[in-house]
Amino acid sequence: MRINSEKLRGYFPILDWGSRYNRDRLSNDLVAALIVTIMLIPQSLAYALLAGLPAEMGLYASIAPLLAYAVFGTSRVLAVGPVAVVSLMTAAAVGNLALQGTAEYAAAAITLAFISGLILLVMGLFRLGFLANFLSHPVIAGFITASGILIATSQLKHIFGVQAQGHTLPQILGSLLSNLGDFNWITLMVGVSTTAFLFWVRKGLKPLLLATGLGPRMAEILAKAGPVAAVALTTIAAWTFGFEARGVALVGEVPSGLPPLTLPGFSPQVWSSLFGSALLISVIGFVESVSVAQTLAAKKRQRIVPNQELIGLGASNVASAISGGFPVTGGFSRSVVNFDAGAETPAAGAFTAVGIMLAAVFLTPLLFFLPKATLAATIIVAVLSLVDLSILRTTWTYARSDFAAVSATVVLTLGFGVEVGVSSGVLLSILLHLYKTSRPHVAEVGLVPGTEHFRNIDRHDVLTRDHLVTIRVDESLYFANARFLEDLIYDRVTKDCPVTDVVLMCPAVNDIDASALESLEAINHRLQDMGIRLHLSEVKGPVMDKLQRVDFVGDLSGQVFLSQYEAMRALADVGDQTVKLPGASQVKTQA
Amino acid sequence: MRINSEKLRGYFPILDWGSRYNRDRLSNDLVAALIVTIMLIPQSLAYALLAGLPAEMGLYASIAPLLAYAVFGTSRVLAVGPVAVVSLMTAAAVGNLALQGTAEYAAAAITLAFISGLILLVMGLFRLGFLANFLSHPVIAGFITASGILIATSQLKHIFGVQAQGHTLPQILGSLLSNLGDFNWITLMVGVSTTAFLFWVRKGLKPLLLATGLGPRMAEILAKAGPVAAVALTTIAAWTFGFEARGVALVGEVPSGLPPLTLPGFSPQVWSSLFGSALLISVIGFVESVSVAQTLAAKKRQRIVPNQELIGLGASNVASAISGGFPVTGGFSRSVVNFDAGAETPAAGAFTAVGIMLAAVFLTPLLFFLPKATLAATIIVAVLSLVDLSILRTTWTYARSDFAAVSATVVLTLGFGVEVGVSSGVLLSILLHLYKTSRPHVAEVGLVPGTEHFRNIDRHDVLTRDHLVTIRVDESLYFANARFLEDLIYDRVTKDCPVTDVVLMCPAVNDIDASALESLEAINHRLQDMGIRLHLSEVKGPVMDKLQRVDFVGDLSGQVFLSQYEAMRALADVGDQTVKLPGASQVKTQA
Repeated sequence: MRINSEKLRGYFPILDWGSRYNRDRLSNDLVAALIVTIMLIPQSLAYALLAGLPAEMGLYASIAPLLAYAVFGTSRVLAVGPVAVVSLMTAAAVGNLALQGTAEYAAAAITLAFISGLILLVMGLFRLGFLANFLSHPVIAGFITASGILIATSQLKHIFGVQAQGHTLPQILGSLLSNLGDFNWITLMVGVSTTAFLFWVRKGLKPLLLATGLGPRMAEILAKAGPVAAVALTTIAAWTFGFEARGVALVGEVPSGLPPLTLPGFSPQVWSSLFGSALLISVIGFVESVSVAQTLAAKKRQRIVPNQELIGLGASNVASAISGGFPVTGGFSRSVVNFDAGAETPAAGAFTAVGIMLAAVFLTPLLFFLPKATLAATIIVAVLSLVDLSILRTTWTYARSDFAAVSATVVLTLGFGVEVGVSSGVLLSILLHLYKTSRPHVAEVGLVPGTEHFRNIDRHDVLTRDHLVTIRVDESLYFANARFLEDLIYDRVTKDCPVTDVVLMCPAVNDIDASALESLEAINHRLQDMGIRLHLSEVKGPVMDKLQRVDFVGDLSGQVFLSQYEAMRALADVGDQTVKLPGASQVKTQA
Repeated sequence: MRINSEKLRGYFPILDWGSRYNRDRLSNDLVAALIVTIMLIPQSLAYALLAGLPAEMGLYASIAPLLAYAVFGTSRVLAVGPVAVVSLMTAAAVGNLALQGTAEYAAAAITLAFISGLILLVMGLFRLGFLANFLSHPVIAGFITASGILIATSQLKHIFGVQAQGHTLPQILGSLLSNLGDFNWITLMVGVSTTAFLFWVRKGLKPLLLATGLGPRMAEILAKAGPVAAVALTTIAAWTFGFEARGVALVGEVPSGLPPLTLPGFSPQVWSSLFGSALLISVIGFVESVSVAQTLAAKKRQRIVPNQELIGLGASNVASAISGGFPVTGGFSRSVVNFDAGAETPAAGAFTAVGIMLAAVFLTPLLFFLPKATLAATIIVAVLSLVDLSILRTTWTYARSDFAAVSATVVLTLGFGVEVGVSSGVLLSILLHLYKTSRPHVAEVGLVPGTEHFRNIDRHDVLTRDHLVTIRVDESLYFANARFLEDLIYDRVTKDCPVTDVVLMCPAVNDIDASALESLEAINHRLQDMGIRLHLSEVKGPVMDKLQRVDFVGDLSGQVFLSQYEAMRALADVGDQTVKLPGASQVKTQA
């Protein structure tokens, strides 16, 4: 058997870029990897905390998945690892099954990553990437914004040093407010000052460093090191001033060493209760990942293969599951940083994995004194950039149905949690789309005198004949609007007695399904019973092919005209009296 | 306050036809009512049996509902009452809640009629008739056919005189086969001979009567009296030969008298478990009813108002619920008979109600000896006319996606019951529609030399330019196909390096939703990053209005052209070299 090398490179993009790797690329990839590693250490710990998991699982999820993506991914710069929204969804999914802090909880998160990885792989192998299309942009935008608000709110408990539970905004706020009396002064000071520091680093540090004459690349590295500095400073403070004894929650003991080999659970009960969540996590992670990967690839005229991305992300999640991690995907800000720092190939990701591996082996003992408030501050500053309510204004201006989908998704995600929010959003946007197309734009048209064009009789001064009704439908005909058309035509012809011919003008009818065919047949027969003929005009080629397969045309009481002008000439004899004929001189219009 | 008489007549069509009632119409309506009554007596008893209810409930469901429809309905000839499919659905819905034969079972059927009536009334008042459009024709056809098979199979137990339960084909057949040893000879003889007799009446009696010189109307009445004759003959036989003592199942004691006043139950638990079923029953009943009503109305150039039909059917079901009945709708064969028999107004329905009322008062004592096998035979002969597998062949020829929807509905209805079958059918047809439109027909087009027309480059010999790519999309752009378009364009432009201009030709794009707008913006920016301009051409008016509201055009790297020909002239300078310009002489083509 000959191996198809083209196909092989398709499934293993590493064979493609790997064969052209060189020294220049290596040095660029190494610099990018350094910056991303510095950014990823606190983020990976923080997102593990957000998912309700031990800190080391954040590190584990940032090693093997990056290596797997480097082999299978098609984006040169996508930085895979734990991300905020997927971590929140993990907490929501696993929280239904086990109590936070238990071994079952961690095991369920590993299983969730495994199921999610399998789903992505299957979608990739069967080229089911199109399923992600059912997540409309307003739904994703509303979902991400609402998730950002939920995440930021959920971290306030760490800033105040109190207990709080819940997966919805009312739950989290209620639980937070009722425990607020127990807040810890030192925790609050650490939390608030770290948050303020990180906001300043994000907005003000880089311009300041550039102003002091530092090179842009160095300024970039130092600015991205803000969270690492916050981690270091608060850890030292906690150790020096004995925060533990004063009731400040610390990360505590983190086992050091390489990721363990883990096995997902295979209990059918666990699988069936995690499957729906895994599907949502997979699809949302995929959509977000591909969107950032495509934006960055376009800047260098590179190409992303969405179905191969499914395989890349699937492999990453399976890798995460067998190395003690939890669900991962491509992170937006981290990928942008990777790109800006000059990463040229997925090797940058692999080098990042090595950096995190070193951290897991050598830095973990130092994490004992890291206050959880510091990590919470990192999360809050990161996720507030996700919150973008401008989508509400934009969709309000653009189309009310999209606005309805966004606002429902935001409200339902905040009020009922991530899973209800995103599922209802998807369902609602599908229903709204069906509703819109179930009442298509339809116009009764007449001939613009002196031309061969037909326009809406309500908007233009056009030529019509009492016995001839021409209706133009601006939508494909299918089950959701088939009966609408029936009703419309009956209403029109029972209103006016002298009608003898109805022409359906179909230039924008891209398809006619079996329901619509049935309706057309019913219209044809019922009009025939009324002594009225039904004609079609300007039917598209593929639609005509379908109609001919069932001999609809043979059954039609009228004719099928290539153009509406021909239809009008044949049925209303307007040619001689009113309009310029090709090759004939113009005659007077009788309106 | 002035009463709007036009509106009042809309809600009470009886005011309209009632004011023009006369002696001729009365005599026609009376004859039609007589024929329908003769047909309805055995049917109403049989469908009560099918629904698992006492026989008298079938009579009750054929009195008040008909009077209510006569007041509120818009069809002149629709014959409302118990019908086969709705009775089967009632059995499935109520069977989940209570055991057949108990008082709870009958009470649940009454409540089901009430909820179904309320749903129909609410749909009518809020003009939600369009919701019925989500039931595509293939789904309904498949569902009705599968229901017919289920119903006929479920009646075999009465023909054999054995026990059998279940709501799916495997359950019914399995249960029937395992009890078949207990069959009763006399029951079987009654069942088989009645079935054969009824088939003969249906096919052979009327021609025979006409051949003997009988008038057509009399022949019609006698032919329709077949089931009544079977009922009378087998009842007499049962009484004469003491069938009861020989183990033949009889209808037994039927209380005689007018329908009782009943109240639906209001337990929230019962309502929540019946709501889904009531919704399905309402929608299916409505769709079937309107379809037959429209077909018959068209023959006399009359008009059906679908939203008012919802009110008519809703009132009928509420009337059924408060008079000891169960869910009803417009029956297909009965309405056709009513029409053929010359019914002119809904008064015919009211007269039929009077006929059934007389039967409920005077005939019920006679029903004691009626064998259930006779009723089962009536049902089998009636429902086999619903079974029409030709829809499988038609849809196979016409469109595979419609075939998939039909066959899935048939298989799932037979295998998992009516509710699973019809719900999955609806879901599947929606998903198939979304899938189809998520991969729209897209063509790269070029100029047909010597014209201003553009055609697919793969099918026609057209003029193109290497730096200019024109893509025509034959579908509205919305969330399900937005990313498809993105991928398509990136694939096209990363393949060919010299591309500098992409034109999206939009004559068949009837809408662009917010997701597609976002995709167009992304395409625009990413192409700009690649040094490629994006243009649009032939954008429809309403779509252009939306795009202008968000200033998409101002953001666009290229232009919006009124026609594709203008676009090509502006971008490729083909006008001077290759095609006939308006007002210019033709020059040589440079291919």
